Amino acid sequence: MTKATVLTGITTTGTPHLGNYVGAIRPAIAASKNDNVAPFYFLADYHALIKCQEPDRVRQSSREIAATWLALGLDTSNAVFYRQSDVPEILELTWILTCVTAKGLMNRAHAYKAAVAENEQGDEKDPDKGVTMGLFSYPILMAADILMFKADKVPVGRDQIQHIEMARDIAARFNHIYGEHFTLPEAVVEEHGATLLGLDGRKMSKSYNNTIPLFEPEKKLRKLINKIKTNSLEPGEPKDPDTCTLFSIYKAFATQAEVAEIRQRYADGIGWGEMKQVLFEYINEHIAPARERYEALMQAPDHIEQQLQEGARKARAISVPFLKDLREAVGISRIAV
Amino acid sequence: MTKATVLTGITTTGTPHLGNYVGAIRPAIAASKNDNVAPFYFLADYHALIKCQEPDRVRQSSREIAATWLALGLDTSNAVFYRQSDVPEILELTWILTCVTAKGLMNRAHAYKAAVAENEQGDEKDPDKGVTMGLFSYPILMAADILMFKADKVPVGRDQIQHIEMARDIAARFNHIYGEHFTLPEAVVEEHGATLLGLDGRKMSKSYNNTIPLFEPEKKLRKLINKIKTNSLEPGEPKDPDTCTLFSIYKAFATQAEVAEIRQRYADGIGWGEMKQVLFEYINEHIAPARERYEALMQAPDHIEQQLQEGARKARAISVPFLKDLREAVGISRIAV
Repeated sequence: MTKATVLTGITTTGTPHLGNYVGAIRPAIAASKNDNVAPFYFLADYHALIKCQEPDRVRQSSREIAATWLALGLDTSNAVFYRQSDVPEILELTWILTCVTAKGLMNRAHAYKAAVAENEQGDEKDPDKGVTMGLFSYPILMAADILMFKADKVPVGRDQIQHIEMARDIAARFNHIYGEHFTLPEAVVEEHGATLLGLDGRKMSKSYNNTIPLFEPEKKLRKLINKIKTNSLEPGEPKDPDTCTLFSIYKAFATQAEVAEIRQRYADGIGWGEMKQVLFEYINEHIAPARERYEALMQAPDHIEQQLQEGARKARAISVPFLKDLREAVGISRIAV
Repeated sequence: MTKATVLTGITTTGTPHLGNYVGAIRPAIAASKNDNVAPFYFLADYHALIKCQEPDRVRQSSREIAATWLALGLDTSNAVFYRQSDVPEILELTWILTCVTAKGLMNRAHAYKAAVAENEQGDEKDPDKGVTMGLFSYPILMAADILMFKADKVPVGRDQIQHIEMARDIAARFNHIYGEHFTLPEAVVEEHGATLLGLDGRKMSKSYNNTIPLFEPEKKLRKLINKIKTNSLEPGEPKDPDTCTLFSIYKAFATQAEVAEIRQRYADGIGWGEMKQVLFEYINEHIAPARERYEALMQAPDHIEQQLQEGARKARAISVPFLKDLREAVGISRIAV
């Protein structure tokens, strides 16, 4: 039985936060220890350039994300953990795929359509105002990321299903013209994945600026948790855990028994100050060992780099010969008898 | 004084014909011997994929074009003669430029607009029908070709000026965001370049299927020249050279004195059969030595390949360090202290 290849990219534009951890990093780390899957995890730095034109932020984010995944115990003997830009074959494949991708397919991409809709709602006469070719064509780069490693499964949120469908479309088109070369990937939608709420009660997301960084030092972590918005119910009054940001975060970390206990304390009227203390202590304890490793890794860039180079070596052992086949298939090869 | 860098790409989708020779190859070969310029000439095989999905044709065309340029005496000690796909840094640069290119810029490209106009004239409801992302975004690949080698001058036909303007736009945008890295290229329009007419009297062009291949064997060359359309004037009747396809070709090869002599023979009523014989003999004699070298080269693929590899070595001596700088500028680099 061959292992299923699972692929996930992390765009290097921000600092990992509790929402990233619960939604994506924790399951990916667990999967890295599963001998039945072959995981490919990569720092998507060439995707970062689409949204972020601050070089230092891209650099810092790459370092933080790599250190985070390693600190959390990523099993790099099973998972291939690499930086996208260390596999330049992906960019060549992107162009090869560009030549078989219908423009109409990109016209229908949600992210592009949302940008156009926003322009059209305003007074803007040019529907493409502010849209770069990076935003318009990144589904092709994503297809190259996926198809290069013949990924079988790509874990995604609902909003990303379309990208996997596009990768399938592009792969099928290529296979039709040039023969069977690509595996058609499947989206694995994390329906029951925990969604954390952020400081302001909306979904925790970098774009809302409401995140709690995963490895925030202890004092800052306490400060941020104290800032989480609650309602104005007094201690002693029964509270609804299911609409409460504090509870949403606690639930994502604690065991079922612990969650049941806290649910009871909400019914019994736990005060917000007390609950914030409970939450802080719980999370702080949970992440403390990994945070210590993270801080050490952030001071050992050579070690991080070495891990990424080892990942790149494993990735290129696949991408170099595969690209050679693909080039041959489209007519790009050395001149020989 | 630094030499001006001049850059020309040849799309590898066809067999070089007399029109290519007179319009582009002959002046480029001459420039390769000019010590005051640094010429970069490349086989644009990644451009070929946009229009041509026949691998064998792309392969065969690459071989024919390389053999043609070498047979005609390209000075590879001065010119850098390489295959685009041997310089993978160009594809990485393409993506970097994609992220700073406005989609609106591509919307205005002539080739794209022509495709849309054709759809709109027909009954087609989708203006992008049949348009690939390759067609839509190739001006970015072209910008990468040009900017990678800091080309000062790019010889182009009138219809290509826009591409150079786009390369300038993209370069200026990058320089604005990330600091001065790129040289802004200038289009050099070949206003007085000879335009040959083809077998049917229209401009000689692969897309009209009316070409005379440059190194057609003697017998076939004679046959093709005999097929050139003329009017029905009889021998002895005076003829107008300036509307005559035979004359347009002769003129592109002969000296001024020879042209004047033939002009007189038109006035004197030279017969079409005789003129075809004159033209065949003149061209055949003119190209015979190069044709012999061409045929030998086509039988020596290893020699061609070796020349291209040497060109790639020279090109990458520039592209590898330059891409490293550009990656650093946008925030893509190894993690270090």
